[in-house]
Amino acid sequence: MGRPLRSAQVGRTLLPKRLALPVFCSDPLSSNAYATEEILLALSLGGLALLHLAPWVALAVAVLLAVVVLSYRQTCHEYPQGGGAYTVSRENLGTNASLVAAAALLVDYVLTVAVSVSAGVANLVSAVPSLAPHAVPLCLAAIVVLAVVNLRGARQSGFVFAIPTYGFIAVVLVMIVWGALRAVHGGVPPAESAGLGIRGPVQAGGLLAVALLLRAFSQGCTALTGVEAVSNGVPSFRPPKGRNAADTLAVMGVLTIVLFAGITVLALASRVRVAPSPGMLTGAPPGYAQKTVIVQVADAVAGHAAWLPFLVAGFTAAILVLAANTAFNGFPVLAGILGADGYLPRQFAHRGDRLVFSNGLIILAGGACLLIWAFDAATTRLIQLYIIGVFVSFTLSQAGMVRHWTRRLRQGAADGAGTGAVHGAGAVPRARALRRARAVNACGAALTALVLVVVLTTKFTHGAWIVVIAIPAAFVLMKAVRRHYTHVEEELQPPAGAVTLPARVHAVVLVTRCDIPTLEALAFARATHPDTLAAVAVQTTGTDIVTLRRQWDDQRLPVPLTILDSPYRDITGPVLDYVTHIRRRGPRDVVCVFIPEYVVGHWWEQVLHNQSALRLKIRLRHRPGIMIASVPWRLASARNLKQPPGHTSNQ
Amino acid sequence: MGRPLRSAQVGRTLLPKRLALPVFCSDPLSSNAYATEEILLALSLGGLALLHLAPWVALAVAVLLAVVVLSYRQTCHEYPQGGGAYTVSRENLGTNASLVAAAALLVDYVLTVAVSVSAGVANLVSAVPSLAPHAVPLCLAAIVVLAVVNLRGARQSGFVFAIPTYGFIAVVLVMIVWGALRAVHGGVPPAESAGLGIRGPVQAGGLLAVALLLRAFSQGCTALTGVEAVSNGVPSFRPPKGRNAADTLAVMGVLTIVLFAGITVLALASRVRVAPSPGMLTGAPPGYAQKTVIVQVADAVAGHAAWLPFLVAGFTAAILVLAANTAFNGFPVLAGILGADGYLPRQFAHRGDRLVFSNGLIILAGGACLLIWAFDAATTRLIQLYIIGVFVSFTLSQAGMVRHWTRRLRQGAADGAGTGAVHGAGAVPRARALRRARAVNACGAALTALVLVVVLTTKFTHGAWIVVIAIPAAFVLMKAVRRHYTHVEEELQPPAGAVTLPARVHAVVLVTRCDIPTLEALAFARATHPDTLAAVAVQTTGTDIVTLRRQWDDQRLPVPLTILDSPYRDITGPVLDYVTHIRRRGPRDVVCVFIPEYVVGHWWEQVLHNQSALRLKIRLRHRPGIMIASVPWRLASARNLKQPPGHTSNQ
Repeated sequence: MGRPLRSAQVGRTLLPKRLALPVFCSDPLSSNAYATEEILLALSLGGLALLHLAPWVALAVAVLLAVVVLSYRQTCHEYPQGGGAYTVSRENLGTNASLVAAAALLVDYVLTVAVSVSAGVANLVSAVPSLAPHAVPLCLAAIVVLAVVNLRGARQSGFVFAIPTYGFIAVVLVMIVWGALRAVHGGVPPAESAGLGIRGPVQAGGLLAVALLLRAFSQGCTALTGVEAVSNGVPSFRPPKGRNAADTLAVMGVLTIVLFAGITVLALASRVRVAPSPGMLTGAPPGYAQKTVIVQVADAVAGHAAWLPFLVAGFTAAILVLAANTAFNGFPVLAGILGADGYLPRQFAHRGDRLVFSNGLIILAGGACLLIWAFDAATTRLIQLYIIGVFVSFTLSQAGMVRHWTRRLRQGAADGAGTGAVHGAGAVPRARALRRARAVNACGAALTALVLVVVLTTKFTHGAWIVVIAIPAAFVLMKAVRRHYTHVEEELQPPAGAVTLPARVHAVVLVTRCDIPTLEALAFARATHPDTLAAVAVQTTGTDIVTLRRQWDDQRLPVPLTILDSPYRDITGPVLDYVTHIRRRGPRDVVCVFIPEYVVGHWWEQVLHNQSALRLKIRLRHRPGIMIASVPWRLASARNLKQPPGHTSNQ
Repeated sequence: MGRPLRSAQVGRTLLPKRLALPVFCSDPLSSNAYATEEILLALSLGGLALLHLAPWVALAVAVLLAVVVLSYRQTCHEYPQGGGAYTVSRENLGTNASLVAAAALLVDYVLTVAVSVSAGVANLVSAVPSLAPHAVPLCLAAIVVLAVVNLRGARQSGFVFAIPTYGFIAVVLVMIVWGALRAVHGGVPPAESAGLGIRGPVQAGGLLAVALLLRAFSQGCTALTGVEAVSNGVPSFRPPKGRNAADTLAVMGVLTIVLFAGITVLALASRVRVAPSPGMLTGAPPGYAQKTVIVQVADAVAGHAAWLPFLVAGFTAAILVLAANTAFNGFPVLAGILGADGYLPRQFAHRGDRLVFSNGLIILAGGACLLIWAFDAATTRLIQLYIIGVFVSFTLSQAGMVRHWTRRLRQGAADGAGTGAVHGAGAVPRARALRRARAVNACGAALTALVLVVVLTTKFTHGAWIVVIAIPAAFVLMKAVRRHYTHVEEELQPPAGAVTLPARVHAVVLVTRCDIPTLEALAFARATHPDTLAAVAVQTTGTDIVTLRRQWDDQRLPVPLTILDSPYRDITGPVLDYVTHIRRRGPRDVVCVFIPEYVVGHWWEQVLHNQSALRLKIRLRHRPGIMIASVPWRLASARNLKQPPGHTSNQ
């Protein structure tokens, strides 16, 4: 579907920073839509008692985000050809680590779609509560639309990304500034849920409070998801690629921290109360449906100006859908790299063929739909699965960077003076600069590893075990695929001597009817001037061999019709025997079986034709020294097709 | 699966009457397992008030059965080559009537499986009440076992049929005689449900009573299902085939009437009470589960001798499973005849190929499973769908016979004296005998048509509408398939002049790697001595064309490697263009594209190989003047297979 793109055209699509930001940062920026909410939800398990700790949790998340952004800026500089976790860990940590990263990323792409779409729909539902009962169908519909758009291969311009992303940033900034002004002039008005109590199932105190705090932190870490996208996309930046990417990353980091902090402060100031289930809220009116935190804050800040919550909900939903779309772009690219490296079926590597892209997109969309259906489109429950994969790839990527710096340090020591640049052009790569860079990445690696442990322990029983199974499963699968390809390649290494030519060629034309396709197959067979040529028909109890022989004679063909008797009423068996017999007489000969085939225009016609031919071909393939020549004859229904199936005309 | 049978072996399996009875009559005899029950269930809708009419309903059913058996005996005499409803109506009533009969029979085979299996399990459950909650899974398991046994193609000897059938007859006769003896000596003891009342939803009186009576009659007509089997199976009888079949039919008719009457009388004498739902029974202990009528009767008659009910339940279940098996035999045979006549995809006609049989069996088993699941294995509800198809084919078959006799009468009048025999050998076919025979069939046709109308009106809203949709749908489908085949056949009629030979043959070998399969494909291509020969590789951004070219040169092949550039990163497009270009230079030439293919041993390996080749082949098929030669190379995993997939070794 869609027009193919020349490989060269990729060069024309280099992005300026102002367009690269929306294209690569919609995913991390969109995390603000749910990060604050997730912290509040986790703390609500301890009732109202722990809510005062929310700012500290948010601060920890912001610091972590800053460290990770600093770490990844270095990756952008060092890997201008694209520094995804898979690439970085393959170059520095070896195959197994890179495959773990790849498995984590593949699982994460599926979860990105599921989480982003369900969070987007949750915001829509907050603005238009009457849609609430249809959340799951809405999510599934959104995924189907995304899948179809991407299957069509419509090329989104940067502007399609720019509007929702900048719109989201703008409208949230407006909300934050407005809220700040109101805070100065008499305080932020209370949110609609400000009066509610929370009946937390946990009497938080001592160790339990610490556990809840850690859980809140790990849920808040969703703010970090998607940071990786920029380092993946370095090749799409305008030169100097590394520097521009690093700058974009910095802008993204600052923006995310500002938005995240602003939303969190306003949510606390307006005393937003949320709970994992509405039953935990006390004092709520009957039929009370929880809105998302960001919409509640907008409601509170705007007062009677209802346009703000609507705009916030709309742009939030839009940027979340964009974030899901990021996964639809990223999944096939990663699958393509893995396919080219032999870790996934090779056809994933054929990026140009849209038929192949489809497979990856359908797997992605199907997996996301399954998750949404299984988890009832509940963002909070899906989030539990989400960030494990993110932090696995963070940790591996940072650890890989540490190795990278160590190697460069050693190289520098060996060379006396290096040639590259650590930061920016022209700077002398002194050992101190390298050591500082390594320290940044080591700090990032240690922190993200720590968070990974926290996330694993606090979330394992809340659904994270699914991911803990899925990532190793994907890992084992990729190893198995690669092992298979390696075996086959070794097996098929051509021997030193030349391949011997077959002594003679025997042509066998399969005849079931005396019709045009059969006569054409015979004509083609004759044109190849084989050493022997036989037209073979199988006589079963059902076939009218007398009529066939008469029609054959009427055609006055120079090839006599050989009739094989089939005592078992089977067509394939006698043909196989006949062919095997020819081969036995001349083991160095080759037999070419010509099979007339009908090419049909509609898939259902396929059921009505070629079935015997198909079975015969499958069985012939298992005999040595045989080649199978299909002679297609297009029926009128196929010739009338304007566009043959699966054909992207480019002649 | 299983060893193939020579066509000639069919001759050896002619059946003596004592084995033909169980083989062909298990279906009609098994109907006694539920016919009485169905009458009582229908009458129970009017409470206890209408139960005294049961004997009259049973009598009407018995008379109808006698008429139908008499009618079908004549069919056996006249169609020794097999007189199924499809054959008889095609010969006498034309194509459309025969297709209606065929559609009715196909639908009926599915229902036979569903009804027989669910009734069989209902009897098992009556004997072992603890199985009651598992009725549906038990039914599905039974169908799967039947399907697997038939897919294996195990050839049942007549004895496998003889034991359950004669066992069923014997055990029910013992029960009837025992019951008669007890009736003489102080009366039949009451059944376990004798004390219960029935709260019928209908206050039966006047027209409503008549309606219920008609409904009871139409449900009782299930006793007639399966009578057709004997007339289908005439060719399997020992000669004189017609006479032996007619005699077997007569024995079956007498036996069925005796068993049916006996069970009905005993059920009334022991005052068995059944209702469509347990809630309609009054005075039942809590948790009361209804047993089948035949098991209740056996319980009552045997008193403390618990072996009788167990034997009755066991043999009833066994004969019902046999009856289901009849459908598993009949469906593929009918589908085969329809396939040979072009009304179903042609591959159904290849009886010898077990792969094809499988399709029919899987459709049959799948349909039956679906019905059992949808109707919760409730025999009573499935029965509502059942006998419409039976009576459609009865009516068409009898009407066809009337036409048949009329023609013979005309023929006789024309010839002065005929040559055939009406009944038995040696009898002079006087016009009177022909007219009597016609009268019998006319009577049968009229009665069965009347019953069909009754059944349709009384059962339409109870599920019969499904069948009323399914039969025309099957009819339309078969017509469409035939129309398609006819069109194609006309289209492919060879013209009067000879087919012109292609001027030259151009060979193109597709190269993706320099491995053994590719070199073998090249060797085969060279062996065919084409006019031109090119080895073609496609250069995309991902392919390492330098390595390929070096390896190619290392092999010192006499064919240079042609590199096609692919700006669209697509492999198929450039090859298509290249081939089209060759054809354009010589429109009377033919291009043979040699594609090396990997033959793998496991289905999952298929995902990892040949995908580009497959896509290329599909697209090449749509270009004129091209043939596609697959050169299969068996990987070690395929060579190690003892038995290639789908291969019934018979060399």
